[in-house]
Amino acid sequence: MTAPLRIGLAGIGTVGAGVVAMLQRHRALIAARAGRPIEIAAVSARSRHRDRGVDLGPYAWEDDPVALARRGDVDLVVEVIGGENGPAKATAETAIAGGKHLVTANKALLARHGQALAEAAEARGVALRFEAAVAGGIPVVKALAEGLAGNAATRVMGVLNGTCNYILTQMEATGAPYATVLAEAQRLGYAEADPSFDVGGIDAAQKLALLAAIAFGARVDFGGVAIEGIERVSLADIRAAADMGYRIKLLCLARRAAHGVEARTQPCLVPSASPLGALDGVTNMVVIDGDFVGQTIYTGPGAGAGPTASAIVGDVIDVARGLRMPAFGRPAAELDPPERVGDEAEAPYYLRLALTDAPGVLAKVAAALGDAGVSINRMRQYEHAAEEAPVLIVTHRTGRAPLDRALAAIAGLDVCRAAPVALRIEDA
Amino acid sequence: MTAPLRIGLAGIGTVGAGVVAMLQRHRALIAARAGRPIEIAAVSARSRHRDRGVDLGPYAWEDDPVALARRGDVDLVVEVIGGENGPAKATAETAIAGGKHLVTANKALLARHGQALAEAAEARGVALRFEAAVAGGIPVVKALAEGLAGNAATRVMGVLNGTCNYILTQMEATGAPYATVLAEAQRLGYAEADPSFDVGGIDAAQKLALLAAIAFGARVDFGGVAIEGIERVSLADIRAAADMGYRIKLLCLARRAAHGVEARTQPCLVPSASPLGALDGVTNMVVIDGDFVGQTIYTGPGAGAGPTASAIVGDVIDVARGLRMPAFGRPAAELDPPERVGDEAEAPYYLRLALTDAPGVLAKVAAALGDAGVSINRMRQYEHAAEEAPVLIVTHRTGRAPLDRALAAIAGLDVCRAAPVALRIEDA
Repeated sequence: MTAPLRIGLAGIGTVGAGVVAMLQRHRALIAARAGRPIEIAAVSARSRHRDRGVDLGPYAWEDDPVALARRGDVDLVVEVIGGENGPAKATAETAIAGGKHLVTANKALLARHGQALAEAAEARGVALRFEAAVAGGIPVVKALAEGLAGNAATRVMGVLNGTCNYILTQMEATGAPYATVLAEAQRLGYAEADPSFDVGGIDAAQKLALLAAIAFGARVDFGGVAIEGIERVSLADIRAAADMGYRIKLLCLARRAAHGVEARTQPCLVPSASPLGALDGVTNMVVIDGDFVGQTIYTGPGAGAGPTASAIVGDVIDVARGLRMPAFGRPAAELDPPERVGDEAEAPYYLRLALTDAPGVLAKVAAALGDAGVSINRMRQYEHAAEEAPVLIVTHRTGRAPLDRALAAIAGLDVCRAAPVALRIEDA
Repeated sequence: MTAPLRIGLAGIGTVGAGVVAMLQRHRALIAARAGRPIEIAAVSARSRHRDRGVDLGPYAWEDDPVALARRGDVDLVVEVIGGENGPAKATAETAIAGGKHLVTANKALLARHGQALAEAAEARGVALRFEAAVAGGIPVVKALAEGLAGNAATRVMGVLNGTCNYILTQMEATGAPYATVLAEAQRLGYAEADPSFDVGGIDAAQKLALLAAIAFGARVDFGGVAIEGIERVSLADIRAAADMGYRIKLLCLARRAAHGVEARTQPCLVPSASPLGALDGVTNMVVIDGDFVGQTIYTGPGAGAGPTASAIVGDVIDVARGLRMPAFGRPAAELDPPERVGDEAEAPYYLRLALTDAPGVLAKVAAALGDAGVSINRMRQYEHAAEEAPVLIVTHRTGRAPLDRALAAIAGLDVCRAAPVALRIEDA
């Protein structure tokens, strides 16, 4: 197997240039590991003459990525165009239909069209791999789909968006509010001009949908992920959580329920001393619980040219070595149809209430919780100057429905000076 | 590819029974992921009638594992006998010579005979895989050899022996000395009756030798690993290190040097706030630095029936899926011959000196360090009652040779009331 594997690179932004740099710098190393040379045959991008810091001279140029995906001298297409439709989708479909392997970093594409692309790839007998689409340079798709393949996964969770974790970490470290930290993150290039894709939880939820499909053998169901962003996380909650021994993270979580899969991306409290609680800055982390292996944890850079190129080239080397396996770890036709699960899984909750400072108020709140069947684990009221008494409560494990009943009852008491905050606590 | 993959299981101790349990419980799941059924055809162990908690009735029995490895109805041999020679080696050699794939958890076997076995496996076109031999349930061999294959690794380090980490963690937590904690660990089953293989660093060094071979494309060179155990780590050093912001770990470290590979397993200081510094108990952790990906970290259970079975079955599924790649990530014939590197890599050091309490002593020590070219970063002398003044020094980066010259000069001053302690500090 000494024939080279010929790559067509669709998209030459930061990540695409990183792939070129890696394949150039480690040409001999990669050939030794892959068992055959890996050569770029052709590249495609919107602007031919932009300086990207890498020499594209040796490669054929295509203005149109779909034309690139049709070339006879390309065995494998690397798609780093981005976007869930448009040229990325057309390029991916054309590559697979033409019998070419596809390696992509495109979580949006796979979150929407993963099932169809996986079916097409299997029908054509080509590989579809996407390590770079989840957690950047951390080979966690491989860990889950291959290394832990003997296990039934029970839970997969993690911090999958570096922008959000940077913002939450900085809010705690500097005491600056959300808007200020976001603006600073934008200035430093950690957040996009339009940050909604990141801070709204969409990006993280797309990655979670892919991990959940592999972990639980179900079709990718992005629409089934309950999504809440970090826009409403307040400094007050970050501080109060810390005081109770927790940190607030944008947590991605997927869990096998009695029927179906529970999948959520939302701000949660995790114990400060846990690996997820200790995770600072833009770093990503994935925590996988399997029934035989127990808990394994994967940490590393979740974005950037080098880490993303590393994941892409790792996939390319797998294909060069001859690895052929279904995209989501089992044949696409055997993946379970999506079965969505709500919030019925019980959890402890963190509640922050701003109560009127009057005799008997706390007793009424406690009674409302008790009447709804929500039991209090810890309660803390702080010394306060104003008429608003800040009260923190950590409940025992409860379903979301009883909690919502209790919160409605508390609202009816007319003792809250602001809307109560309720955040789930996840044992890490 | 629907023909079953037929397993011969050599060794049915705790781990072997775990493999049987996993293949039985997840029969359908594993078949779906592997693309074909995986069936145990035959098993072998010393005692046929011991109760192992799993039903071995359906499988053919062989008293002799070598006979098992010769069976015509076996496609892949799982070797969990253990030991670097004897029946384990004979079984492995027989399996490969007979054209059967080999999956083994045997680090001792591979640390000594890995090169020969890898060459034999490649010559016969069979797979040789050993995920379970390193870091138990953490799929770190896969991460390094496959996921990160596009990178030149610069450093691989980790805590690879749970017994040692448990003992060091407990010494710090309880204030009990080494011998007491070791006895307790033996009582709890965390340490063997003869603990020397673990506490002497041999077990960890064998694992490191395997990781280094993959990371740096060199032949397994267990003899080239500098080994020091934890037997001489004192409570005084654990406490003093903590006071300077460090924790003491039995650190496995392999680094690409200008020529060859530096490989050491020895007690080192790592920053308390780093992932390695925060690692408690029997958990394992591997930290990999690659030139494109940066740093990725892998954490999980390093031993036990479930985690080890998980790693073995992951390898078996890879083979069933058709993965064929060289055991150490590139063809055995292309692996570099061992080139050993001493301690010339510079590092900061922690020094603990017990000095006589007399005027001018500290100045003489400082001068001796300076004369040898060792520069002091931090120094701390504690209030003391006796005539012995405890002094802690953290040096700037220095080679081991200048440090040894300085320590010899200090010894010649006749101011030390006990042998100086010098431990390397590794930035995590």
